[in-house]
Order: sequence, then structure tokens, then C-alpha cells
Amino acid sequence: MNKQTIVVALGGNALLRRSEPMTAEVQRNNVRTAARALAPIAEEHNLVLAHGNGPQVGLLALQAAAYKDVEPYPLDVLGAQSQGMIAYMVEQELGNLLPFEKPLATILTMVEVDLDDPAFRDPTKFVGPVYAREEADRLAAERGWTFRSDGPHMRRVVPSPEPKQIFELDPIRWLVEKGTVVICAGGGGIPTAYLPDGTRTLVGVEAVIDKDLASELLARELGADLYVMATDAPGVYLDWSTPQQRLLGHTTPSELERHEFAAGSMGPKVEAAIRFVRGTGNRAAIGSLEEITAIVAGTAGTIVEPDVTD
Amino acid sequence: MNKQTIVVALGGNALLRRSEPMTAEVQRNNVRTAARALAPIAEEHNLVLAHGNGPQVGLLALQAAAYKDVEPYPLDVLGAQSQGMIAYMVEQELGNLLPFEKPLATILTMVEVDLDDPAFRDPTKFVGPVYAREEADRLAAERGWTFRSDGPHMRRVVPSPEPKQIFELDPIRWLVEKGTVVICAGGGGIPTAYLPDGTRTLVGVEAVIDKDLASELLARELGADLYVMATDAPGVYLDWSTPQQRLLGHTTPSELERHEFAAGSMGPKVEAAIRFVRGTGNRAAIGSLEEITAIVAGTAGTIVEPDVTD
Repeated sequence: MNKQTIVVALGGNALLRRSEPMTAEVQRNNVRTAARALAPIAEEHNLVLAHGNGPQVGLLALQAAAYKDVEPYPLDVLGAQSQGMIAYMVEQELGNLLPFEKPLATILTMVEVDLDDPAFRDPTKFVGPVYAREEADRLAAERGWTFRSDGPHMRRVVPSPEPKQIFELDPIRWLVEKGTVVICAGGGGIPTAYLPDGTRTLVGVEAVIDKDLASELLARELGADLYVMATDAPGVYLDWSTPQQRLLGHTTPSELERHEFAAGSMGPKVEAAIRFVRGTGNRAAIGSLEEITAIVAGTAGTIVEPDVTD
Repeated sequence: MNKQTIVVALGGNALLRRSEPMTAEVQRNNVRTAARALAPIAEEHNLVLAHGNGPQVGLLALQAAAYKDVEPYPLDVLGAQSQGMIAYMVEQELGNLLPFEKPLATILTMVEVDLDDPAFRDPTKFVGPVYAREEADRLAAERGWTFRSDGPHMRRVVPSPEPKQIFELDPIRWLVEKGTVVICAGGGGIPTAYLPDGTRTLVGVEAVIDKDLASELLARELGADLYVMATDAPGVYLDWSTPQQRLLGHTTPSELERHEFAAGSMGPKVEAAIRFVRGTGNRAAIGSLEEITAIVAGTAGTIVEPDVTD
């Protein structure tokens, strides 16, 4: 098989879940499991690995809020911290499974968003801990945060704008060309934007970029042969949770566009797959991390191929 | 002037000090000041920038300890977080001062130490918050931490072993060759070691590698033309805080070896300078970040040049 460039976006839940203790040991074990699934891909192909960071940023936000002597750092900085934390464990565990000569590197990744993005007028993405209403009101007044109900509690929401540009794209590409396993674009990248004053000043933004869309931009700009979104589901289902539920095997952007998918789960993944396949003419895939070797071979997961007429 | 490869190790105090509020804004302002000093070097030369992380890891340790629901993450993971945090701000602020085409990248850096290093039998490096004696005794029993007196309080100490290998050296070199400003080796690198079981399994270690010695190894292995340790002092003084106190201008390893320097401050810097100059035949410098342009020109700071007989 020819050596391909494969971008894999790893779901945040693959590494840490809110349903289990969020300790270093638990996360380390999950990373090890993920590394075992990914190592064969890294040996055979050029692997570029992106990953989520939702639970990890949630933990960092809780820790920062618990320490009262220093105001918590903003979300862009917490995102940068989470990139360091997660990528460190991934790089180390993956390196332990690969030949010693195989280079690995983590590139901190900043992604540009547009302050005029409509998402800034309608924050939807939950981040950090839940609060009682009075506490939420106080924080809203003090820090300008926006809150929405999350079950019986209030939780902070931030905008989820479109990724426009990956600043470290060239360094990532140069390392891939040298055969390096590159870990990058963690959590959808650190959201940054140019100030609207014409000075080309880049600043951090309190937002969360969808990981699957940011990784798609990365895969497309790298000209990847394959873009895989690895999650805990075997692929994309039609008529999910009805008696007609069925897994989509091989499909196309046009077929995917004939259906609706949940905004909070498969929606962004399907959108990212459509963009990648339309933008490159190459394949995208959505499926289970456990089955990633079969997904790369095209025999598991939902494989999105170009429309014949594309 | 020819384009040189210059490794600059930035003192942790240049970016965050325990004597001022440890907020994101304060750190951001300090980073901006440092970036203004460094930008001319990055424009004219190949700049590789390493940095300290002591105060930042201290803050992360305090935050982690304040949140009681999840056991604090170990020091290697906090170090990785701090690399993300610090490098993000540095990369962004430095990027804002450089031409848009100039590539910048941060490489997460793991450094190998030897579990047989004598430092593991004599932990000396203070990390994290101070504790009352009873709390220190409890943590010592629970977590196996070692404590020493720090003024009236107890504080955790960890070993400070020698850096042996920088795992991401090749990726760093490849990016430098492409003209990238590379930020790496933060906090002396994440300390890691191979388990002594012959399996070549790399694990994180609860230790702190001296930033100046790790950056020296980096500079030497990159074959840098110049290694600068930028601090808040104008250089190395002889007879410090005596009436005979005087700044060393141009000097050599042999001359430096004829004097004693404080283990906690100039000692490791002088040792790093000697190693670099002896190991490469190139110059090292110790001086103030504000004067870095003059230091690179050889007209400020303490410039360590090869012994004539070397």
C-alpha cells in the first residue's frame, strides 16, 4: 500500500470523559489505548493527529476557579495549556509504541476566526463548570460571560466560530514531509482573531472552534489523502434510534446532504466530511477509533467518497 | 552581518514573578516586553527561544491543589501545560512584531534524564506552594513527596537531574532550517526517563531540569553560533555584593572556572556557558534581556569565548 498522509481527529471523549474520574491515571490509560489503535497507522503512513480538549479544559477551568488568589486565565490560555497536557501524553505513549527512529512532534496551534462571524452574536458552546443562578448572574456581571441553562444549572456558553486559517500550517507541513508524526490543532486550535483596527494584531478570543471543522481545514490545506474522524460510534447512522436505524457504509456528500444530523454530535462531523471530500476530491471517514486500521483500509466506518459528478 | 543560529534561554522571572500579581494580564504584558526585545534578533537571525516556567508551574500547582475533586496531576504534566501556556503567549506576541511571512512554531519538548542520576538521591529544587508542617507531613506520607524548610514554611523539593537527550531535536532543527522561529524546551523540558526494565518505555518523572543546562544541550546539539542566557542582571559579576564587585565583560571558560558562583543563581548559567563554549568552540553570553541586541553584537553582557588553548 502506498504511504498516504492521513489526518485523524480524535474525539475528546476518547481521552477523558466526565463520566469517569478525571485523574491523570485515567487519562493516561485512555491515551495508551488510543495510542495502541493509532500506532499501526503511524508506522505505515504519515499521521497527523488532532484531538479534542473539552473535558480537559473543563478540568482546568474548575481548578482555576477553585484557586481564589489569581483570577482564572481566559479560555484561549486554558486551551493552550490543554494542548500541552494532552499532546504530551499522546506523544509519549505513541512514541513508546513506535520504532525509536520515528520522529514525533507536537506543534502548538493557533487558528484564526473572524470577529464578524455570526457565532459571536449567538454563543452556543458550553464550557467549564455548572453554576447556581445567583453565581452565574454575578459572573455575567463581573466578567461579561454569557450563561444558558444546562439541566437544572447554569453553564457558561461561548461562540463556536468557523476556523479560517491555521497559523502553523507550514511548520506542520514541513515536519510531515520529513516523516514526523505531528500532533497539533488540539481542541480545534487556540481561537485567535485580528483586532479590527488594521494593525494586524492577533489576540486570543474567548471561543471554542469545532475540532472536526478545524481538523478538516488542516487536512484540506495539507492536501491529506484521507481525513478520519475517530469517535466512539461505528460510523454515521440513518434514522438513529428508530427501528429503521442503519449504519451508512460508503456514501457521498450528496447522499449525506439529503439527511439531517444532530447539531451536537454527528452534524459537524458530517459537515466536515462533506467539506473535505468536496474540497480535495479525496476520501473522509467517520468511525470508531478501535476500528481505525479497517477504516483506513476502507472496510469499516462511514466512508465518504466524491460524488461521481463532483 | 551573517545570519546566525542563536539560542536564547529566557529566565522564568522575565515573564512572571512571584512578587507581582500572577494574572494573565501581568504575564501578557511581560511577554510583550520580552517580545519587543527579541523581535530584532528573530528578524535578523535564526532564533530558537527557550524559557523558564517556575512561577507558572507554581501557579498551576496551586490551582490544582485548590480543586479537591481530582487529585493534582504530576509535575511532568504540569510542565507540559506550562509549556503550552507560556509558548502560546510568546508565539502570539512575537508574531505580532514580525513580518507576516515569518514562520513561528512551538515544539513541545521532552528531555531525557537518567534515573541513576545522583540528583534523585538528593532533591533540592523547590516547587509549588508552601505548606504548614502538618500538611507537609501528610502529603509526604500520602504522595511520597519530599519537603524542606523554605523560611518558616515547608515546601516540596524535587530532584534536578542532568539533561541527557532532547527527543524533539530533529523536528526543531528541521524547522530552524526552514527559517522558523522555534519556541521550545520550556522550563528545561518535560523530564522523562526510560524505565529500567529494558523495554525502552519512556515515562514522566517528578523532577525539574535546569533550564539553562537544558537550553545549552539544545544549543550545542543544534550547533548554534551563539547561546544567550537572558536574565535580569547585566551579566556575571565577580565579588558580588562586595566593594570590589565588577561585571565580567569578555571572558573564557578557564577564567570562569577560577571563581565560585551561587548555586541558585549564576552557578548553573556559568556552568552552561562553559559547557557550550568548550563543546562547540562558539560563544555563549549571559546578560540582560533588555540589552540582547547589544549582547548579540558582543558589546554588552558577559561574553564567554573559547580559551585560546582550547
